Amino acid sequence: MTYTLVLLRHGESEWNAKNLFTGWVDVPLSEKGTAEAIRGGTLLTEAGVRPDVVHTSLLRRAIMTANLALDAADLHWIPVKRSWRLNERHYGALQGKDKKQVRDEFGNEQFMLWRRSYDVPPPAIALGSEFSQDAEARYAGEPTPLTECLKDVLTRALPYWESAVVPDLKAGKTVLVAAHGNSLRAIIKHLDGIDDDSIAGLNVPTGIPLVYEIDENLKPTVPGGRYLDADAAAAAIAAVANQGK
Amino acid sequence: MTYTLVLLRHGESEWNAKNLFTGWVDVPLSEKGTAEAIRGGTLLTEAGVRPDVVHTSLLRRAIMTANLALDAADLHWIPVKRSWRLNERHYGALQGKDKKQVRDEFGNEQFMLWRRSYDVPPPAIALGSEFSQDAEARYAGEPTPLTECLKDVLTRALPYWESAVVPDLKAGKTVLVAAHGNSLRAIIKHLDGIDDDSIAGLNVPTGIPLVYEIDENLKPTVPGGRYLDADAAAAAIAAVANQGK
Repeated sequence: MTYTLVLLRHGESEWNAKNLFTGWVDVPLSEKGTAEAIRGGTLLTEAGVRPDVVHTSLLRRAIMTANLALDAADLHWIPVKRSWRLNERHYGALQGKDKKQVRDEFGNEQFMLWRRSYDVPPPAIALGSEFSQDAEARYAGEPTPLTECLKDVLTRALPYWESAVVPDLKAGKTVLVAAHGNSLRAIIKHLDGIDDDSIAGLNVPTGIPLVYEIDENLKPTVPGGRYLDADAAAAAIAAVANQGK
Repeated sequence: MTYTLVLLRHGESEWNAKNLFTGWVDVPLSEKGTAEAIRGGTLLTEAGVRPDVVHTSLLRRAIMTANLALDAADLHWIPVKRSWRLNERHYGALQGKDKKQVRDEFGNEQFMLWRRSYDVPPPAIALGSEFSQDAEARYAGEPTPLTECLKDVLTRALPYWESAVVPDLKAGKTVLVAAHGNSLRAIIKHLDGIDDDSIAGLNVPTGIPLVYEIDENLKPTVPGGRYLDADAAAAAIAAVANQGK
């Protein structure tokens, strides 16, 4: 008996394309991101992977990716569950800022620490500022953050994993999680038992379903899972690795 | 204390535009229908009506209408519930057939009886035929029909109304139901206490949110509710009334 989990990172958003820190700012998919989402659904169909239920964040780039991919896979009708605990990492005071300007202002070392360290969050965002979400109805009554490091993302994502995703897996459902680079890295770190240093080197490409077969002890039968378009995934991961060079 | 219910009929589908009987055949929105859905969301925003939860059928024309309208209203993130009990009326053996050809073949009297009578269903669709849904995974294990009259739609929609929609209303949530001409007529017949003969004359325009304020006994404070674009709704209803003339 194995369980099937499918992780899907949203397609390119308008702010990815503009090179801005996004975090919890709720920007739409770009045209390219829309096409990526639809292709993600086609890849599911071609592989014969049919999710029974989808979990999304509360951000439209993940929600729209799920909607478009599932419609392309003729699975638009499956049950939907959503949680802020699957949101992208909150980038604190960096939200809405140009990545190049931040690097120029604070230097490369600080910039990389904020982007890639496991436990150093950016400065907290000011309550009520332009790119803060503290007044948004969707987060009312929830213990939502003002900034996060990746460790913080694990801390808030894992309770949802345990209480909402794992029960669906144990019920024998194929589960699709449509979310973000860092909330998916948090789940992968937990699943594959990746240590705090090594997780910095792991990137999840956009729009390519990553399929894990998971045993009864919730361990992947193949560490790292398999991308439904392995060549495209490898190329996207190599491109990210080369960005800093 | 009143509850707020919003009914939204999906925008034009590709088969509405082609004048085919659709029923449970899962056709997409037309370009016009997509625009109608987005405008439905804009009307919600302009009226300050903010659904807390959405209920949809299992058909993509209602699901996409909800997705597009809620995204336009910045409410893409609210919880979603779905049920086949909100589906359009099952048109039996007429599904996939041209309306004009059916009228020519069977005569106007029979045609109008199938379209508008309360309790005369069309002939049942043959199991396994091109436009039957009996083999579809989404309906597995459910007591789904092979044809329906409007009375049948009430019989299968009201249990969902009572068990899923009413509890959300009683919890104080503003509830959006994104569904179909006949499943919405069934709900309206029940809500407004319309008799079996008079319901034939009631039409719900596409894409215009219909808002009901409902009292603690689940009776509308204003019978018939109010359309968020009353002029457009009146024009659409008049156009349908004139079609047969």
